[in-house]
Formats: sequence, C-alpha cells, structure tokens
Amino acid sequence: MSDVKEKAMDLHRKLKGKLSVNARQPITSKEDLSLYYTPGVGAVSDYIAKHPEEARNLTGLNNSVAIVSDGSAVLGLGNIGPQAGLPVMEGKALLFKQFADIDGYPIVINSHTADDIVKTVEAIAPSFGGINLEDIAAPICFEVEDRLKKSLDIPVMHDDQHGTAVVVLAGLINAFKITGRSFDDTKFVIVGSGAAGTAIAKLLKKYGANELLIVDSKGTLAQDRADLNEQKQQLLSLVGGPDQSTDLSGALKDADVFVGVSKANLLTEAHVKSMNKDPIIFAMANPDPEILPSVALSAGAAVVATGRSDFPNQVNNALAFPGIFRGALDNQVSAITDDHKIKAAEAIAGLISNPTPEEIIPDVFDDRLVAAIAKEIV
Amino acid sequence: MSDVKEKAMDLHRKLKGKLSVNARQPITSKEDLSLYYTPGVGAVSDYIAKHPEEARNLTGLNNSVAIVSDGSAVLGLGNIGPQAGLPVMEGKALLFKQFADIDGYPIVINSHTADDIVKTVEAIAPSFGGINLEDIAAPICFEVEDRLKKSLDIPVMHDDQHGTAVVVLAGLINAFKITGRSFDDTKFVIVGSGAAGTAIAKLLKKYGANELLIVDSKGTLAQDRADLNEQKQQLLSLVGGPDQSTDLSGALKDADVFVGVSKANLLTEAHVKSMNKDPIIFAMANPDPEILPSVALSAGAAVVATGRSDFPNQVNNALAFPGIFRGALDNQVSAITDDHKIKAAEAIAGLISNPTPEEIIPDVFDDRLVAAIAKEIV
Repeated sequence: MSDVKEKAMDLHRKLKGKLSVNARQPITSKEDLSLYYTPGVGAVSDYIAKHPEEARNLTGLNNSVAIVSDGSAVLGLGNIGPQAGLPVMEGKALLFKQFADIDGYPIVINSHTADDIVKTVEAIAPSFGGINLEDIAAPICFEVEDRLKKSLDIPVMHDDQHGTAVVVLAGLINAFKITGRSFDDTKFVIVGSGAAGTAIAKLLKKYGANELLIVDSKGTLAQDRADLNEQKQQLLSLVGGPDQSTDLSGALKDADVFVGVSKANLLTEAHVKSMNKDPIIFAMANPDPEILPSVALSAGAAVVATGRSDFPNQVNNALAFPGIFRGALDNQVSAITDDHKIKAAEAIAGLISNPTPEEIIPDVFDDRLVAAIAKEIV
Repeated sequence: MSDVKEKAMDLHRKLKGKLSVNARQPITSKEDLSLYYTPGVGAVSDYIAKHPEEARNLTGLNNSVAIVSDGSAVLGLGNIGPQAGLPVMEGKALLFKQFADIDGYPIVINSHTADDIVKTVEAIAPSFGGINLEDIAAPICFEVEDRLKKSLDIPVMHDDQHGTAVVVLAGLINAFKITGRSFDDTKFVIVGSGAAGTAIAKLLKKYGANELLIVDSKGTLAQDRADLNEQKQQLLSLVGGPDQSTDLSGALKDADVFVGVSKANLLTEAHVKSMNKDPIIFAMANPDPEILPSVALSAGAAVVATGRSDFPNQVNNALAFPGIFRGALDNQVSAITDDHKIKAAEAIAGLISNPTPEEIIPDVFDDRLVAAIAKEIV
C-alpha cells in the first residue's frame, strides 16, 4: 500500500491534472474558426433558442456528466473539502471516458449544506446531460439526491449509494446461484448505515429481501433505539426492523449474508462461524476489509467479496456507473429508477455464465459490460 | 454568410458537441486504476487536505478555466438562455485549448440575477484555476465581475469587456504610429455603452486618453441626461463627460477616433468626412460593421478595423484572452489588473514591427502571441 501511495503521488505530481479538455477536431484555419466559433456558431445558438429540444443534437449535452462533490466524504478520508476531493473527481472523469466514452466534468462545491449544493447544481444543470453525485456525506447526500431528482429533468445518481448497491446486488445474485439461496428466505445483515449501506438495504428490499438487519456503530437499527435520526428511522420502517436492538454478534446469529460497508477488521472468525451454513461475506471496507478473505473462507464462508482489486470478486462501482450513464444518455432517460438499477445488476451478473466462489462479478475491464448495462436503461 | 450558417449547422450536427474530456494518459490495467483512482488517489487527496497550497501541483487547477455564461447576451442574439449559449462556450473552450493549451470548462447558468450568478460561481470556484465570464448582459456583468474579483483568489475576467478592450488598445497603439497621434491629445468617440464600450472607455482613459465621448442609443452621455443608470453615471464621471448631450453627428465633429461596438451601418460617409484629418475607424459591430471598410477609406479614413475575419485588421478577442489566462495561470496571478491589460495590449501591438493601414493587429494564428502576452501577466 505505501508503494501504491508513493507511485500515485509521483504520477499526480508528474501529470499535474489527469484530464485534458480537447477539441474533437482541431481548428487549423480562419475558416474553421468561423464555423466552430463566430460568426457560424451564432446560427447554431439561434437555432437552439428556437428549438430547445435540439440542444442535445448540436452540443455535448448528449454525452456529458458533471461529477459533483462537496468533498465531505472522500474515500475513507472524511470531510477533506472540495479541492482535496478534486483528484478523486478527476479520476472518476477518467473512468467515465475510459469505460463509457462519456465526457466527465469534475465540479467541486465550496459548501456542505444540502440547500447550497442543490441550488448550485440546479444553477449549472443546463451545462450537462447528467449529474453524478460523489463523495457527499450522509445524511446530506439523501436530501441532495432526492431534491435534484425532483427538480431536474436529467438523470441524477449518487454513485456511492446506487453504484455500490447495484454491484452488491449483482454479486449476490451470482453468490446465491452457488449456495442455492433465494432472496425471500435469506437473512441479510448490513453493517454500515451511511450512503452505501442505506442504498444497498433499499435495493435488496426492492429485490425481494424479507429479513434484513441494519447495524450501525451502536448496534442493530430497532424500534427501541431512541437515537435514530430521521433518515435511519425511515430506513428502519422500510426494512421492517426488529423491536429490540442487539450488538453485531446478536445480529449475525443464523444470518446468511454479511454485507459490510463499515470498517477494517470488524468481523471475526467467530462471527462467521456463528452464521448459517455456507455464509456469504461481502466485506467492502476500504482499503482494509472487515475480514480478510482467507480468514473468512477458513471459517466456512462459501463466497467472499471485497472492495479490493488484489482479491477475487472486487465490488467496484466502475462496473456499474459507466453503463448506467451511457444508457441514460443514449436513451434520453430523465431519471434512473429502482427498476433500472435492478436491470443493471442482472445484466452485470448475467455476464458470468458459471459463477464460482472465485468469480461472481466480472472484471472491470470486461468490454461487454457497458453495452450489456446500457441497453437496460430505457 | 448563409453559406457559413449552413456549414456551421452541418458541422455541429455531425459533431454533436465540439469537446472531449480525455485522460492525459490512458488507463489500461488494474494497476493504472489503482494509481489514477482508488486506492492510490486517496494518498493524493489526503496530501492536499494537509497541504492545500499544493492542490495546483497535483490536479488540473494549474491549467483549467471555467467559461461561465447565463446566455443573456450571446453574440448579437441577446438573451437566448443558457443552453442556446452552450455552443458558443464550447467554441470558446476550443479556442482556449487550441491557442493556449488551457482546459476550458463550459458552465452555463440557469439564472440571470447577479446574485445567483455570483453565488453559483463562488460555489464551484474551487474546481478551477480561473474564471472567464462570457456573454453576460450589461449592467449585470459589471456587478458580477466586481463581486467575484473581490471574493475569489483566482483570476476572473469578463472577456466581452476586457478582451475586446485590450485588442482595441493594441490596434489603436499601432494606428497612432501610422497617423502620428498621441493618446492625450486625441478625441475619441465610443459608440456603445454596454460591456465592451464601457471597458474600452475605461482602458483608454487609463492609458492616457483625455477627450473621450461615449454615445448610446439616445446620444452622448452627458450631465444633462436624466435617464442614465448608475453604471452609466459612473462611466460619465470617470471619463469626465460634457455638460450637454448631442447626437452622433455632433459627437463625431472634429473627432480623431471612432470606436463602434454598436450596430450595422450606423456610420455614414458624411460622418467620416466630418471628423479630423486621417481619422481612425474601428467599426466592430457583428456580423455587419458600422461602416464597410471600403466606404470609410474612400471617405478619408486613414486606418479601418472591424470584427470581421474577411477584412484587414480583425479585432478578435482570441488575440488576447488565451495569452492573458496562460500568463495568469502560469504565474499564479490572483487578479487581472488594468496594468496587465495595458501590458497585454502593448505586447500584441509590439508583434507588428512596421504597422501599415492594412496591418495594425497580428493574425490570430500568429504563434508568438500567447507567449508574448503571457510573460507580461506577472
């Protein structure tokens, strides 16, 4: 890891910015200038003023996504502010281009209130074909996304929530094929009730999960918890949580699936052994998982996934968001729905024809991914 | 012109967006991913959080400029709104890249109040190394620029004002070499008191102009005009305007220099003949100038400039803004001052070693331009 850190610092120092905004075609003559810019461009602007619905056919609106963050929940670093978040947003733009040929525009915002973020994004929304919200802390992120989805007619997605949820669902679909489970008679335990944990819980519920416990740093979300904020109360009522809160060990007893978006080394061998036979472990804390795959497997886990690229089954948002936005832009989808997310998860899972414990999720460089997902976003 | 319009429409329809946001280096492996994005990028973000002054050395901040417009004064089309303005902002980004290798990010804003525009730009300012304001109507544009220059510590420039003013000053410096004039004993008449006219008046005043009349659609700005808004009153007091207003003909009598940023065919042969000997005519209305160069010359003009690329001496902002922002970014200049603008104008003028009536301004493709200007922005 310290080697990766050093190499990453060197690379960023050398590049001084990972992105370049280029002309699709270079301008080489005064005639070019007169067509790409003035006076010719005036005809294009005039035409769009009279036919606003044609804007996407004459500008980059058909292919552009703003990558918006306030830098309040950047990777595992917490609230490091907008400019410290910028390298991540540049990296995200680079993934958008690499995987889906989408033009990503990093926009970091100098405020952490839902109101300011919403108003800023609403103000600049006419510049883009879609909005990818990124690394905005819970619970602000929920309000920001909800309000923008209502007020804007272009796709808005908070990727830390839904990108992660889609890939988790894809992985579970294939893990269930291996262990012979169905969503309606499986006990899920989700540890972490921030952006990702919340979205995973909602999507699993939508996909048919019946028994679902959510655990935060104080134990299981339950009716007897007096300390739950509004968002956690809503989540509890959505999943139909228990009357009494327990600790993690209590929650895991007889559970089938552990989904961790929490912190390193939270899960012990004993925890895994206390679960039902052939448990499924998604330990996605970054950079160090809740439990190492080798430990989980030796404790009896049937399938293990992590967020790491150096272990099998990497749960990586980059499997989902490029295809989802590619489809949303190409098919002029004005909102990304639960149904889209489920279809995307099924498309990702469907690329693995014979799931094995070492392969439930495709590789992020699988070149079938974007097209397979995009055709479902209609 | 209709040929240019048609060709421009065809080109825009074919390209569907003139820009592409690219990786400076392509990602081809999982190791690349781990350095450009997670987990490696975390080290970079963490470092910037602890050393904010290093952000510009590790991200694109050293080379990025937002091109911000509310679409309220797009070319000669007026208030056509943000999305209709987008093709122009894309074109501008393309010029930034082509001429100065700067990454331009088009941002169009969905509101026309100074307050909303200022707040939006302040909110997204940490994303960029500089702000180019574009096609924002007067008088809003003055307040927007003034407030942003005060609140932001990155260079902010409304190009319709200052880009134009710099090139006009450059052209006049060389035209005066031809006709043997000096700034302090020359009578200037500026027709048009919007963004460009105001900035030209201010810069000429700063450069030593003593006698300067400004004409709007109702006549000369003067003490007896009861209809002047606050901005025009300030302008009048700055230039030390006359007591009594006259019409254009009255203003032009015995004038040496006509600077038009107004409308087509405003200036007649008789007007030119009523001016002092060897008058200088800058007729920059677009796309059709206040007077055709052939008409002005036959009426006795010594030097004629227009905004058109098909006549000699094109006053084109693209001569100035690429070098000004290149210098501001490279030299970490936090504000573009009057002194910078004057130095930029002198640098542009200095590229023509022997000014003639047909060549007072360099060609926009002159590859010495950007470096010559940039070194003055310190």
